[in-house]
Amino acid sequence: MTYGLGMLLREGLVMAADTRTNAGVDHIATMRKLTLFQLPGTAMMALVSAGNLATTQSVVTRLNQRLGFAGNPHNLFEAPTMFDAATIVGNVLREVMAADASHVSAYGDPSASLLLGGQIAGGPQSLFLIYAAGNFIEASEDTPFLQVGEMKYGKPILDRLVAYDMPLAEAKKVLLLSFDATIRSNLSVALPIDVFAKNADDLQLCEIRRVDQGDRYFNTVRKGYGEGLREVVASLPKVDWS
Amino acid sequence: MTYGLGMLLREGLVMAADTRTNAGVDHIATMRKLTLFQLPGTAMMALVSAGNLATTQSVVTRLNQRLGFAGNPHNLFEAPTMFDAATIVGNVLREVMAADASHVSAYGDPSASLLLGGQIAGGPQSLFLIYAAGNFIEASEDTPFLQVGEMKYGKPILDRLVAYDMPLAEAKKVLLLSFDATIRSNLSVALPIDVFAKNADDLQLCEIRRVDQGDRYFNTVRKGYGEGLREVVASLPKVDWS
Repeated sequence: MTYGLGMLLREGLVMAADTRTNAGVDHIATMRKLTLFQLPGTAMMALVSAGNLATTQSVVTRLNQRLGFAGNPHNLFEAPTMFDAATIVGNVLREVMAADASHVSAYGDPSASLLLGGQIAGGPQSLFLIYAAGNFIEASEDTPFLQVGEMKYGKPILDRLVAYDMPLAEAKKVLLLSFDATIRSNLSVALPIDVFAKNADDLQLCEIRRVDQGDRYFNTVRKGYGEGLREVVASLPKVDWS
Repeated sequence: MTYGLGMLLREGLVMAADTRTNAGVDHIATMRKLTLFQLPGTAMMALVSAGNLATTQSVVTRLNQRLGFAGNPHNLFEAPTMFDAATIVGNVLREVMAADASHVSAYGDPSASLLLGGQIAGGPQSLFLIYAAGNFIEASEDTPFLQVGEMKYGKPILDRLVAYDMPLAEAKKVLLLSFDATIRSNLSVALPIDVFAKNADDLQLCEIRRVDQGDRYFNTVRKGYGEGLREVVASLPKVDWS
């Protein structure tokens, strides 16, 4: 399983994925599920993938292999807009499904879903959720976050706290707490978490921040949140009925 | 959809279900999904149901109709132990599935899952989760809560706070907060919530507490929790990386 999350805010974009993959409970590995496609000054995109790992790796590799080829219809760096970039990713996902799905289905679910976020010079920053069918929806001021994979455990805190106008630094904190809730409730989602964040209109080279067991900030925040939440509940009045 | 929750604690037992039923989003009704089976001084049981409403109503009606018949193998009030009571409920669920499932499957999922909690004179209080197949698992000191239906949104707060040794009054508060999280994240779970609570070894007549929109305590707690959680997150340190 995977948990992937993206938030589109006025101040910028933040996306993250855990790195646990599993086939059953005795075949577990750490795999990167957040990939950057960067052409500084021109295009800055991040892709989070959830679902069948062979499918998502094939999508990422095909996209990477086509970046160098001018005129290739699947070259992300030649997409005029983020909408066109999402269309390319959806089409490559359809291509992989057409090649593999009928062979894979007997053994398990071949499908995948993806988050594509980023910005192309001259256009706005955007965030898309691309479904297994290759179609997609876009985040907006009203719905600033999108999720893929094991999304339910981490959603209540997002529903309460995420808003388009919140500071990017605050969004990173809430993002980590949403992952913490998911990791606590589902063994198949696990550290490390890969995090990508960019400020709006910044098309400079970005790095992925890897948050693992020893991350001082993550441990401070998860501990402080757990203790604070416990205190809040304890301070609420007792039930006035038996 | 339904959310149903039961907690087995040293001090007592608390169980609850919401009352929203829906077939699609334009066919919504309020239905009781928490039923009591009470023979004061002898047996005190509560059943929470989730899943196909025709199936669960049929199970409850069949159980009720057999209460009056001495010697009927499905008479809950003649079950020597709570384990036997759970076996009866599982068998009645199998009976309903055998009668209806093949007819219903073409139109939707006929299955259901149930929580049975309670106590029979001379035995310990117990809580069971009865699966669609009629088999069941039992709550314990290590795993003091069980859920049915739309369970994921309400689970993180339970994972953090529920313990076998917590006071029953505190458990009721956490139970309401778990329902609040679920109601916020899934339209198909809605107020009112029916709550049943009993103290350990108390076999006197109980009542269901119905918590609806106007419930002063519920509104105080959900508002206080939301504000407190917001303050906790705001008070946590800012990310120390960009």
